[in-house]
Amino acid sequence: MYLERIKAPSDVRALPASALPALCEEIRHAVIESSAAVGGHMGSNLAVVELTVAIHRVFETPRDKVVFDVSHQTYPHKMLTGRARAFLDPAHYEDVSGFSNPRESEHDLFAMGHTSTSASLACGLATARDLAGEKYDVVAVIGDGSLSGGLAFEGLDNAAALGSGIIVVINDNEWSIAPNHGGIYRNLAELRATRGAAAHNVFRALGFDYRYLGEGHDVSAVEAALSELRGCDHPVVLHVHTQKGRGYAPAVADPESWHHAVPFDVATGAPAVPGASEDYARITGAYLAERMACDQRLVAVSAATPYIMGFTPEMRERAGSRFVDVGIAEEHAVTYVTGLARGGARPVLGVYATFLQRAYDELWHDLCLNAVPAVLLVFGASAFGTTDATHLGFFDIPMLGAMPGLPYLAPTCREEYLDMLSWALEQEDGPVAIRVPVASVESRPGFERPAAGYARGWEVVRRGCDVALLALGDLLPLGEKVADALAERGVRATVVNPRLATTADEDLLGRLSADHRLMVTLEDGVLEGGFGERVARALACENVRVRCYGLPRAFEDRYEPKVLLGRCGMTVEGVTADVLGLLRA
Amino acid sequence: MYLERIKAPSDVRALPASALPALCEEIRHAVIESSAAVGGHMGSNLAVVELTVAIHRVFETPRDKVVFDVSHQTYPHKMLTGRARAFLDPAHYEDVSGFSNPRESEHDLFAMGHTSTSASLACGLATARDLAGEKYDVVAVIGDGSLSGGLAFEGLDNAAALGSGIIVVINDNEWSIAPNHGGIYRNLAELRATRGAAAHNVFRALGFDYRYLGEGHDVSAVEAALSELRGCDHPVVLHVHTQKGRGYAPAVADPESWHHAVPFDVATGAPAVPGASEDYARITGAYLAERMACDQRLVAVSAATPYIMGFTPEMRERAGSRFVDVGIAEEHAVTYVTGLARGGARPVLGVYATFLQRAYDELWHDLCLNAVPAVLLVFGASAFGTTDATHLGFFDIPMLGAMPGLPYLAPTCREEYLDMLSWALEQEDGPVAIRVPVASVESRPGFERPAAGYARGWEVVRRGCDVALLALGDLLPLGEKVADALAERGVRATVVNPRLATTADEDLLGRLSADHRLMVTLEDGVLEGGFGERVARALACENVRVRCYGLPRAFEDRYEPKVLLGRCGMTVEGVTADVLGLLRA
Repeated sequence: MYLERIKAPSDVRALPASALPALCEEIRHAVIESSAAVGGHMGSNLAVVELTVAIHRVFETPRDKVVFDVSHQTYPHKMLTGRARAFLDPAHYEDVSGFSNPRESEHDLFAMGHTSTSASLACGLATARDLAGEKYDVVAVIGDGSLSGGLAFEGLDNAAALGSGIIVVINDNEWSIAPNHGGIYRNLAELRATRGAAAHNVFRALGFDYRYLGEGHDVSAVEAALSELRGCDHPVVLHVHTQKGRGYAPAVADPESWHHAVPFDVATGAPAVPGASEDYARITGAYLAERMACDQRLVAVSAATPYIMGFTPEMRERAGSRFVDVGIAEEHAVTYVTGLARGGARPVLGVYATFLQRAYDELWHDLCLNAVPAVLLVFGASAFGTTDATHLGFFDIPMLGAMPGLPYLAPTCREEYLDMLSWALEQEDGPVAIRVPVASVESRPGFERPAAGYARGWEVVRRGCDVALLALGDLLPLGEKVADALAERGVRATVVNPRLATTADEDLLGRLSADHRLMVTLEDGVLEGGFGERVARALACENVRVRCYGLPRAFEDRYEPKVLLGRCGMTVEGVTADVLGLLRA
Repeated sequence: MYLERIKAPSDVRALPASALPALCEEIRHAVIESSAAVGGHMGSNLAVVELTVAIHRVFETPRDKVVFDVSHQTYPHKMLTGRARAFLDPAHYEDVSGFSNPRESEHDLFAMGHTSTSASLACGLATARDLAGEKYDVVAVIGDGSLSGGLAFEGLDNAAALGSGIIVVINDNEWSIAPNHGGIYRNLAELRATRGAAAHNVFRALGFDYRYLGEGHDVSAVEAALSELRGCDHPVVLHVHTQKGRGYAPAVADPESWHHAVPFDVATGAPAVPGASEDYARITGAYLAERMACDQRLVAVSAATPYIMGFTPEMRERAGSRFVDVGIAEEHAVTYVTGLARGGARPVLGVYATFLQRAYDELWHDLCLNAVPAVLLVFGASAFGTTDATHLGFFDIPMLGAMPGLPYLAPTCREEYLDMLSWALEQEDGPVAIRVPVASVESRPGFERPAAGYARGWEVVRRGCDVALLALGDLLPLGEKVADALAERGVRATVVNPRLATTADEDLLGRLSADHRLMVTLEDGVLEGGFGERVARALACENVRVRCYGLPRAFEDRYEPKVLLGRCGMTVEGVTADVLGLLRA
């Protein structure tokens, strides 16, 4: 076996060319086996096996600088840069992260996990190189799916203007997470069909030199094509055609489902553990699809992640033009939704909290400034969401907390979520964002909409005195359990479902401060700029203490949610003990 | 005179073609005279006179939908849609805003002032139209300068994919705010040189139909070209060549200086009031230019606003490759700076707070996650910055407040600013952001750097007891004046310069709470997610009250800074009275 003897890229360069196909098969096998065991980005990694081997044959990292866009396709790169064991030995499958990480290796230049950054990063590296008068190659490897992101355009546009030596490898596997959407994909298709000779060429139009290689899985051909670019003194694009899922039939047959795999059986492709029968994706999709039948203005919008809204390919097909996937383009998605609402449609945009960060200005300057009725479903906004440092979802409350006129609703159960969504679609006052629950699906029979709707006003779930537990969204069960534990100690706590993550109910807080000495805020978001600080300020001149629980302003990485919450004191025992101590003080 | 008889676009359409050149001259004259009196975006408005007249001849707003990108070029549009008096009668020059505003007119579809949104908004309008089964034209008018923004690419890319009738008018005056930067501008130049026939065409490559018109100031030619697109059922670009500053010689000769004019003398072009002899732009530029001589790694970066860093065209020329203007591309700027720093350079990025919003995710995911030493100079971050709702700079603290590992320094005077900048450039721990003062340039002789640097720790400026005034950045003088007023009433107040806008100095707060019953926070930023809330939370379990002064979470528009601060209680008298009241309570 070649792979286990490769300790550094120099070992790849030392191999005879004849050994490379076998090495590639070993890498492919390791991707499949390790992903089957612990899950992973199957499709993209299987597509870049030969490309990655060729890159490490031609360029000499870390002296040469290679930046993999998004970096979810760096498993082969990791295997060739001293980290093969993490893909070969089941006992070490969790040793390395799924993304580029400078703490793991000097061959990883940046920590990253969002798309479309590689051209800009490469521009920076190239300028720094030129200013220092050094000579080495700077290479950005970017997938076709990432090209719809505006940042990628800004980076390519600037690379062309800088005019310096930057090699951009377009790894074109014809897929984003889901199918690609955007005019540029027609051009990529033309270029593939003509082997790069099409009359229209967006890269040449921007000023790039351009080469095409159709044989992205012929490792010698890729090596030869890259070799020609070694030491290139101007911006050049090498457009390489690859196949998503290459070498694993189920992944080739269904690239969307296999973009990221949960643990599965290699022989059949079946998931190792059956999925939850009910989750908020499915609840959302079912609700919206049904509502579309009676509300002709409803449009569902996604930025390349239709599955988070529960829209399967079949449901998208049925929805027709009522479901719009704009591709990886969160900024456009928010501004597009603003235009849709102004034009009289009623849009619902579903997006991961971590990716919504891309559209901060569009939220402020387009959606909120224009105060149009549009609904934003924020997914994964929780400590219980994605746990990689690159994809943390628990910065959402500070992100949305200062947006003028944007109520940010935090439902606590299925019924409350659907009623908030229904209310948000009916009201005409302006945009409404909903923090879709992430933890298990809770249910509250007999749930009723508050008379005043959801724009203001918190809900008192249980009325006590002395201490009030304000437990946001997914943490309401924690608040209730703490109240139960306190009751056993003779303290009758008030429990509040705040419903609004970024707005203090000052009336209620005023009333509660009459017979409460302590308020406790519980949120699974960062403390800085969070829900608790809003409460602390509202009560800062009152004769009541406020204890805020929340998460640190830090890039927690691959954490266990319960452990993180525990570290922050958010356990039933921890909060109960703190409350008893503070009430005694 | 034609202009004063035009009450609605139908009056424009009723004019004989022979009257149009005279109408255009009247509009141009009104732009110049009104801008001379109250300031304004001269260059862009003079460029679009004929284009705007032709648009209102061909399309019937508000039934047809026309979106002007950025909307700083809408003075002619306003004149033709019932608002001519605001440009003709000096007594009414301030009646309308400088940007598109639905509250002013049904012909203004959106409030806006940031660039590159028009294609996305037009996509939304077009989809809404198609879903409703209606027929009207949707037109986006976008300047060449706005095309470097990634959002514009996302919108154009999606427009091409939607395939519906969307007319994109590229108003190519060959200028951004400053000169354009980006590969796309080479393509625009090729297209101009060949009257649209160049082999490379980025718009056609994306899938647009494409037309070129070189005679952007021949109103009949523009009308004819637009007429051909009426009712177009697919995405089409009309590329119109115009001249920035057309009709006013000084503005043609120096488009950068005349992008936005302060009040001036029409005959000579000289400013009506001499500019301040010292401001933070000049202080910044002088410092960086001098430091470049001895620090070979220093690179200054701008996203199309080099003047805010005090870099005149001559200084940029001298700095050579050490000054990089990336064009309107804030996202790229932040990610580029991350790459620069990783590559060993020492970048300083200067950007307006309101435009930095575009790069929220890049700040989080690229700069902060990678913790590289780069310096961010945030300009206009204050109630004393730009006062249009579209450009508010006082949302900066919530924007940066949850970024992990990003100290956000708030200097209070010239010496402190320069020392913080120097310290930020020397340290290697990670990125540092500085909230550049906006109010008048204060000076503190004998200023000394704190022994521990600036990463943590606030400064006690004056030690008293009972009440501590924590007065951030530009508001330190207010804090000192309140302390003086309190001293006259027998209260010896403590005054603190917090230095850090997003981090509480918990040690100091702990010490102060021993002999202070009241803390007052003063910030010229929004309260939600702001500095005061951090203090309120830090002290929420202590036996001390906290009174937070700050600005509302609202789109204040064309406000008078002192009036706004007064409304929020931030006057010497107001704060003094409140403090006395709270100390008595």
